[in-house]
Amino acid sequence: MDKRKVILDCDPGHDDAFAIMLAVQHLDVLGVTTVGGNSPLANVTRNALKVLEVIGHADDVPVYAGHSCPMVAPLVTAPMFHGESGLDGPVVPEPTHVAQAEHAVDFICRTVMEQDDLTLIATGPLTNIAAAINREPRIVERVREVCIMGGSVTYGNWTPTAEFNIYVDPEAAARVFESGLHVKMCGLNLTRQAAFDEGTVERFRSLGTRAGDFAADLTEFFIGAGRSVNDTHVGCMHDACAVAWLVDPTLIRAVPMHIDVELAGTLTRGMTVCDYRHLCGPDPAVDLYRDPLHAPRGKRPNAEAALELDHDRYVDLVCSTLEAYD
Amino acid sequence: MDKRKVILDCDPGHDDAFAIMLAVQHLDVLGVTTVGGNSPLANVTRNALKVLEVIGHADDVPVYAGHSCPMVAPLVTAPMFHGESGLDGPVVPEPTHVAQAEHAVDFICRTVMEQDDLTLIATGPLTNIAAAINREPRIVERVREVCIMGGSVTYGNWTPTAEFNIYVDPEAAARVFESGLHVKMCGLNLTRQAAFDEGTVERFRSLGTRAGDFAADLTEFFIGAGRSVNDTHVGCMHDACAVAWLVDPTLIRAVPMHIDVELAGTLTRGMTVCDYRHLCGPDPAVDLYRDPLHAPRGKRPNAEAALELDHDRYVDLVCSTLEAYD
Amino acid sequence: MDKRKVILDCDPGHDDAFAIMLAVQHLDVLGVTTVGGNSPLANVTRNALKVLEVIGHADDVPVYAGHSCPMVAPLVTAPMFHGESGLDGPVVPEPTHVAQAEHAVDFICRTVMEQDDLTLIATGPLTNIAAAINREPRIVERVREVCIMGGSVTYGNWTPTAEFNIYVDPEAAARVFESGLHVKMCGLNLTRQAAFDEGTVERFRSLGTRAGDFAADLTEFFIGAGRSVNDTHVGCMHDACAVAWLVDPTLIRAVPMHIDVELAGTLTRGMTVCDYRHLCGPDPAVDLYRDPLHAPRGKRPNAEAALELDHDRYVDLVCSTLEAYD
Amino acid sequence: MDKRKVILDCDPGHDDAFAIMLAVQHLDVLGVTTVGGNSPLANVTRNALKVLEVIGHADDVPVYAGHSCPMVAPLVTAPMFHGESGLDGPVVPEPTHVAQAEHAVDFICRTVMEQDDLTLIATGPLTNIAAAINREPRIVERVREVCIMGGSVTYGNWTPTAEFNIYVDPEAAARVFESGLHVKMCGLNLTRQAAFDEGTVERFRSLGTRAGDFAADLTEFFIGAGRSVNDTHVGCMHDACAVAWLVDPTLIRAVPMHIDVELAGTLTRGMTVCDYRHLCGPDPAVDLYRDPLHAPRGKRPNAEAALELDHDRYVDLVCSTLEAYD
Repeated sequence: MDKRKVILDCDPGHDDAFAIMLAVQHLDVLGVTTVGGNSPLANVTRNALKVLEVIGHADDVPVYAGHSCPMVAPLVTAPMFHGESGLDGPVVPEPTHVAQAEHAVDFICRTVMEQDDLTLIATGPLTNIAAAINREPRIVERVREVCIMGGSVTYGNWTPTAEFNIYVDPEAAARVFESGLHVKMCGLNLTRQAAFDEGTVERFRSLGTRAGDFAADLTEFFIGAGRSVNDTHVGCMHDACAVAWLVDPTLIRAVPMHIDVELAGTLTRGMTVCDYRHLCGPDPAVDLYRDPLHAPRGKRPNAEAALELDHDRYVDLVCSTLEAYD
Repeated sequence: MDKRKVILDCDPGHDDAFAIMLAVQHLDVLGVTTVGGNSPLANVTRNALKVLEVIGHADDVPVYAGHSCPMVAPLVTAPMFHGESGLDGPVVPEPTHVAQAEHAVDFICRTVMEQDDLTLIATGPLTNIAAAINREPRIVERVREVCIMGGSVTYGNWTPTAEFNIYVDPEAAARVFESGLHVKMCGLNLTRQAAFDEGTVERFRSLGTRAGDFAADLTEFFIGAGRSVNDTHVGCMHDACAVAWLVDPTLIRAVPMHIDVELAGTLTRGMTVCDYRHLCGPDPAVDLYRDPLHAPRGKRPNAEAALELDHDRYVDLVCSTLEAYD
Repeated sequence: MDKRKVILDCDPGHDDAFAIMLAVQHLDVLGVTTVGGNSPLANVTRNALKVLEVIGHADDVPVYAGHSCPMVAPLVTAPMFHGESGLDGPVVPEPTHVAQAEHAVDFICRTVMEQDDLTLIATGPLTNIAAAINREPRIVERVREVCIMGGSVTYGNWTPTAEFNIYVDPEAAARVFESGLHVKMCGLNLTRQAAFDEGTVERFRSLGTRAGDFAADLTEFFIGAGRSVNDTHVGCMHDACAVAWLVDPTLIRAVPMHIDVELAGTLTRGMTVCDYRHLCGPDPAVDLYRDPLHAPRGKRPNAEAALELDHDRYVDLVCSTLEAYD
Repeated sequence: MDKRKVILDCDPGHDDAFAIMLAVQHLDVLGVTTVGGNSPLANVTRNALKVLEVIGHADDVPVYAGHSCPMVAPLVTAPMFHGESGLDGPVVPEPTHVAQAEHAVDFICRTVMEQDDLTLIATGPLTNIAAAINREPRIVERVREVCIMGGSVTYGNWTPTAEFNIYVDPEAAARVFESGLHVKMCGLNLTRQAAFDEGTVERFRSLGTRAGDFAADLTEFFIGAGRSVNDTHVGCMHDACAVAWLVDPTLIRAVPMHIDVELAGTLTRGMTVCDYRHLCGPDPAVDLYRDPLHAPRGKRPNAEAALELDHDRYVDLVCSTLEAYD
């Protein structure tokens, strides 16, 4: 087996559901861990089990429930986008499997210490990842990288500057970005390019698989929620981008960047502060990091920020994945 | 005279010099006011007089010195870009004119109350403009608009998120953006498009005018400073964009936007927080301001943010202006 | 005349009225300047004139109106304590005098540059004082000291940590404390000791002077407001303490202290951050400022903080002052 | 056994050593948990074992190591007060016992869920307690109360407003104070009253017990460190106050208070913001919490703040405790 070993930490969530479906087929998912975010912990854990049952992998991919609340801030959820269940839309039976007894953070710490070359994927608030780093600081040296959906190189959604996942637990995000872990960031600037429209829904439905119908139902609900809240006509499957990046790195163009999280701003709390001055000068080729003695320059990159998505090939990957289940 | 009436508040500064040269020829400049910024107040006031003498308008355009320091923060200057004098490069005699006795803020308040339809242009820290609003709150209702070089829709220069002019006096900037005045913002995102290179220098020099030589010398020094500090090979004449916008509105594409200034962030103090979520959705045509009852939306625009500059026509405007002096 | 030369900057306000009455009798008041605070600027200016007319000094003490709003923050007023007029209670005719044409800040700057050894007293938000420093930085070297009512060594009133005058314009207060001016601070910790009760009211009334009756009416209203808002049974004439300190320094025990103003805290904005660690150690006599090389120590004092008021002698001073008018 | 059941979370540290010695004799200590603070985690864990060996309780009081670092902030330690080992001074052999395998946070969560009426004592940064609340939110309902040494009603030590334990991990402290747990706070304002001087050292030494000698050596070193850093001549055994309060509640006078932790201030980060306005009015008896409709009032108390220590009886308690060991 040469699939890449990962743990997928998520809060399903319609777009997390796509992340799970991509990851289980293309990566070696050692476990799915859950965190309160899009919906409370009990919901997102149940939803993770549901998705795994739909794709027939509830027996071989264990689910571990993690933190129900952010490190410091009160929990904010997004029922206007994901419904009361956190996964409204598809009619799916209650899951027959249950989550493991082990706490998600213990599972993460234990697995990282046992397995070499493990990658963490995080598509919800970074609470579990930060708690794992705090509990077992050695994982910083052992994890290959953490690939997240969260933040943004540019604008936010929950506030003008903050994206939802980071906004929900800014302290956890700050801990992760400053930990020394290599972070791959699929920010909103990237995931807004991952739009599914009614045509995509039809394409999913025409696959004739249970996973295809499930995906079509999820997307229809998500498009409808966006229409109702934001007057948009598409649904962006944000979280799946973080998985797709690992499945096929050629889908995404990214650049090295220093990224910090603002904790204190009146208008900017929860912003991923991306230093991309070196990309935006009149001479974009110039490496502004070269000489640290000069003043108005930034810190060396601690992350890779995704900038551009190959939308069509991304949709193709999702479709072929949905077709292959069953 | 149907030229637009303006007061130009500035801190020359190489790019302010271009702003003065454009403004005096194309607008009805009732006065040039100065503020500590790129260089201390005594320097920038002397430099404003020098520029006016070079273009032969020191007799008809009065200069008023204003605040030497920001409202609250300590003054930061930028000698690495503008030299010790604030206008290093050209060899120009000491000015023979002197500034008026009236304080810049008094001049602004008095003139706004006397003149209808006046526009303020500000290409330095917004200290004088904020002080004028505080001293005479009625000017908010009387000024047509304030057109500034400062801030950014996206990235900063002095810090990853803050542009120099706003960084120097964030409190003043916050006061101006929240005042109710209509603000036209030429941010760094726009002015980085206003690059002059060695070819531009040659073009200035070939004009054969004193103003052309002066502009060539300024640009050469500025390119050199950028090379030394940032390894860039061009000089962006930021401040002149704010004047050019008024001279020929077709040079710049702009959009309405709500803009606030962050005062409290650890990483984001001095950032112009621009809410451009409505421009970046998957459906960019959708007006996200339409229905204020829906949650993750922004405040109604208080500003116009410049996004795109017609570089070639901008350079042409500068050249024809320099040619017309003498 | 060997009375101390002062300018009294205030926002009357019941306790400011007492400040004016004390100052005019015992100090050489070159002018009363007003600032929006307890009530909007028009009110407090009218109230200053009223008080001067009551004590018969409207002809020899000029009033200058200053800033109507804080430097950056929106104006907050305190009608629950001072009524809609800012001076509810006493029935006093509309003033027949008017304020001077000169702006308060210009008056302050001009007078400081003309007069040696001038003291500023400020019993409202520090907006005018900060604006004066910003407009004419040389006054920092020329003013003898500024004696304020505002802030607190310990707890606040408007928030758990912020006193009203500083809370209203924290940026102005920060500017003053960091300016280099020597500040004498009568904080809430001191002025809460300046309580007047029903017995004090009777004492004022028994004086048989117009000023005594006026003071009695003011105090009755103020006690009533406190009862209604806070269930207290006394009225603290905060602002008068700052004047009393200059009239008779033996009334107040004070200590040197470093004081800054917090501008950014979520819970502490507007707090006067007083470093009194040197006073509270197990060895209070030890000078913790002595050796700057040791770590957990503070900055050298920039202020004198009032700690203890001789209440009885303070009330006596007020009574004898009220008796002497007429 | 009717001793009160407690878990003692600490970072020994000289004053933590006294806390352990008091707690083991007078309370039912189910475990000692350690956290990085005064010294790194390995040191403080070893020191906890040492103290238990000195008093002969290493066999019956298990030690559990917890978090090595704060939740978000980088670790700050205090070697200038506690030496490189975190417990410099006494010559004590390396401990022969070792810490338990179970993580401190797991031990806390498990024990709280198993035991009724358990009290937590915390004399270091609140990292472990916050992590326990985050991991097992039900403990908030099950713990009787948490009694901490940390914060201050008034002034700080590490900064003008922040006490060391809270300063080291403000996010954890904020989590604890806002959790709904009842907090008893022994702040610096109280523990500065717990001074031991050379006379106390002599009294310890004259007890003729191993614990007495150990206590004398600890105190001598601590007095010396204070002399060297702060020019003080006593040592305050801060942490022991939190235990003494539970052992004999009559030693301490406390009041209910609302307490929050400032996370964002430029000058006040790590401050315990105590709302004691109700205690400091001119009518201290008035309950300012009574009527929540009135404006400038606070939130209902979430904590008890210790204000006054009976110093002599406190020293007596420590002496009799030290005498009773062996």
